[in-house]
Amino acid sequence: MQKIKVEIPACPKSSYTIAIDNDFLPSVLSQIKKLLPGKELFLITDVNIAKTKHLKNLLGRENVPRFIISPAGEKSKNIKTVTKIVEEMEKKSLGRDCAVIALGGGTVGDIAGFVAAIYKRGVPVIQIPTTTVAQADSAVGGKTGVDSSISKNAFGIFKNPAAVFIDVNTLKTLDEKQFNSGLVESIKHGLIADANYLTYLQKNLKGILARKQKPLEYIAVKNCKIKAAVVGSDPCEKNKRRILNYGHTIGHAIESASNYKLLHGQAVAIGIIAANIIEQKLGLGGKERLQVLKRLFGELNISLKIPKNITKRQILDIISRDKKAVQKWPRFVLLEKTGKVLCKNGQFAHQVERKIVEEAINILIKENY
Amino acid sequence: MQKIKVEIPACPKSSYTIAIDNDFLPSVLSQIKKLLPGKELFLITDVNIAKTKHLKNLLGRENVPRFIISPAGEKSKNIKTVTKIVEEMEKKSLGRDCAVIALGGGTVGDIAGFVAAIYKRGVPVIQIPTTTVAQADSAVGGKTGVDSSISKNAFGIFKNPAAVFIDVNTLKTLDEKQFNSGLVESIKHGLIADANYLTYLQKNLKGILARKQKPLEYIAVKNCKIKAAVVGSDPCEKNKRRILNYGHTIGHAIESASNYKLLHGQAVAIGIIAANIIEQKLGLGGKERLQVLKRLFGELNISLKIPKNITKRQILDIISRDKKAVQKWPRFVLLEKTGKVLCKNGQFAHQVERKIVEEAINILIKENY
Repeated sequence: MQKIKVEIPACPKSSYTIAIDNDFLPSVLSQIKKLLPGKELFLITDVNIAKTKHLKNLLGRENVPRFIISPAGEKSKNIKTVTKIVEEMEKKSLGRDCAVIALGGGTVGDIAGFVAAIYKRGVPVIQIPTTTVAQADSAVGGKTGVDSSISKNAFGIFKNPAAVFIDVNTLKTLDEKQFNSGLVESIKHGLIADANYLTYLQKNLKGILARKQKPLEYIAVKNCKIKAAVVGSDPCEKNKRRILNYGHTIGHAIESASNYKLLHGQAVAIGIIAANIIEQKLGLGGKERLQVLKRLFGELNISLKIPKNITKRQILDIISRDKKAVQKWPRFVLLEKTGKVLCKNGQFAHQVERKIVEEAINILIKENY
Repeated sequence: MQKIKVEIPACPKSSYTIAIDNDFLPSVLSQIKKLLPGKELFLITDVNIAKTKHLKNLLGRENVPRFIISPAGEKSKNIKTVTKIVEEMEKKSLGRDCAVIALGGGTVGDIAGFVAAIYKRGVPVIQIPTTTVAQADSAVGGKTGVDSSISKNAFGIFKNPAAVFIDVNTLKTLDEKQFNSGLVESIKHGLIADANYLTYLQKNLKGILARKQKPLEYIAVKNCKIKAAVVGSDPCEKNKRRILNYGHTIGHAIESASNYKLLHGQAVAIGIIAANIIEQKLGLGGKERLQVLKRLFGELNISLKIPKNITKRQILDIISRDKKAVQKWPRFVLLEKTGKVLCKNGQFAHQVERKIVEEAINILIKENY
């Protein structure tokens, strides 16, 4: 087992450990009990996970009260689901001495983290991510939230988990589309923080796609190390943490405009291309990198087509509501070179003229790159 | 103007200042702008306040976007209202660079504080309490939340305000029942922290009830000083902060069982009597204090009758769901003597046998004390 500590100097009590291993779910519950002695546990998962063996592997014969989110995915990521879960927990008379376990992908983790943050003014949450996107990204760093009818994670809060357990063996039950699209966050990590990691991903893609234990563990560890270093230094996204949003400003807008028909990773892949186009327009280079990315996304079978019904105007409207928007216009994370984010005057997110963004979206829609 | 700093050593960045004065609302907006430069402001208030001159006094001619909660009071303190407010803020394209102003009583402050805590993962909130209960208690200390269909503040979070502005002149528009019941929190402060303050309240009740500026300012300052010292040392209610719950365990249950027909202060007055009965049963004394309290509540015209439709069983059921319950049974804050809370083995909330609590509730229902 490998352990990575997420140190949060601004609030040392919030620091936590990520444990990474293969096929160790059956031992996790006893580790949770050791970590949170005396806490009553409540498990949140979704219908997809409930069908797999992961739930049984985790709980064994223990009867942990639970809520199974249905349907799985972004459609359930709203305040109604949160309300249902809170009332279920109340019916079980759970007090502030309980703890929430999140077993599942990004949606489960986001909902469960939010529930834990707001249940009776806060109880601990344990994240057990089971998808490529959740293991690489959403389970670490404490972002939680649910969508409103208008935008993604409109309701949300920073809530660090008490611990994260990553069993790479759980990735084996994912379908190809979900598995592959989750790898986009790994590619993002290479782009923003470590050019060698991007090279590793290119060279070892076969083994990763074959879901071999060694490369899966390698990327899980690498992703968590990159993310831990960033979120530890800036837990509430005041500045440096924004680099993790690379490709996400336009990516989120397209994801939302598609009504979540596009998977998160797919939308972010398109958003990464958008960032690259903007970089080129600003004279930051990136032409060769674009070819590398197109090839990589191609090998992952990720389509870069924006659904036809999505308009430029829609995308512009959504990005103007970006959480990090200043005076109704978002800031963009940009690369100085592969593995290094542009930092100007200590800032990691930059103003980009509306005209340039509009041009980039035009190119994106026409796939003219 | 008097200023009280709420120091939070565990998280110095969360420290904030309470400003107390008479008739200074017209200068508050410019103070907020100085404190939070560049933030877009959003105001939350309720229909009752919207009818008074307070809103105009605060905003002058400035056009600050707003949400007016309707109906006023606990009936609106739910997740539906939160959702409506969030969506209204989104329609105004407010980003994470906005700030929320709460102008009103406890309900407005609780809802607005919660909205600010969860809007796009958190924006600052300014509390401007306009009632006796909010000025003495709810606007200070960072407790926020809304009710579920099952219990009070089931959804909630600790969110310290960026600042608190208390204009005692706003108390003049309260009706007698509301004004008086809010004074119960002041009595509670005397009971748990300062016997001399309780004596002051007894001696100066006439001036307070006549809403004279001097005693109103005196109690506002005193309440905030007592509360600031407690919440600063224990912002997330791990232990000492629980003393502020004196009388609230059974009080909240009766308030909730009455379907919020009883005002908070009324219910807490009954809860304080309940605590006194338990204290006497446990041999902690308090017989003379009971007479003082009965007289004081009498002078405030606060009825200590529990509505007839509320049963012992209902009260027991609700207290078993208390946020701070351990294994489905609450801990009780008890007085060692007037002005001093019982502390045993470093703990400020204590286990009390179910039998004793049941007996106390019987006595309470029969008003046999």
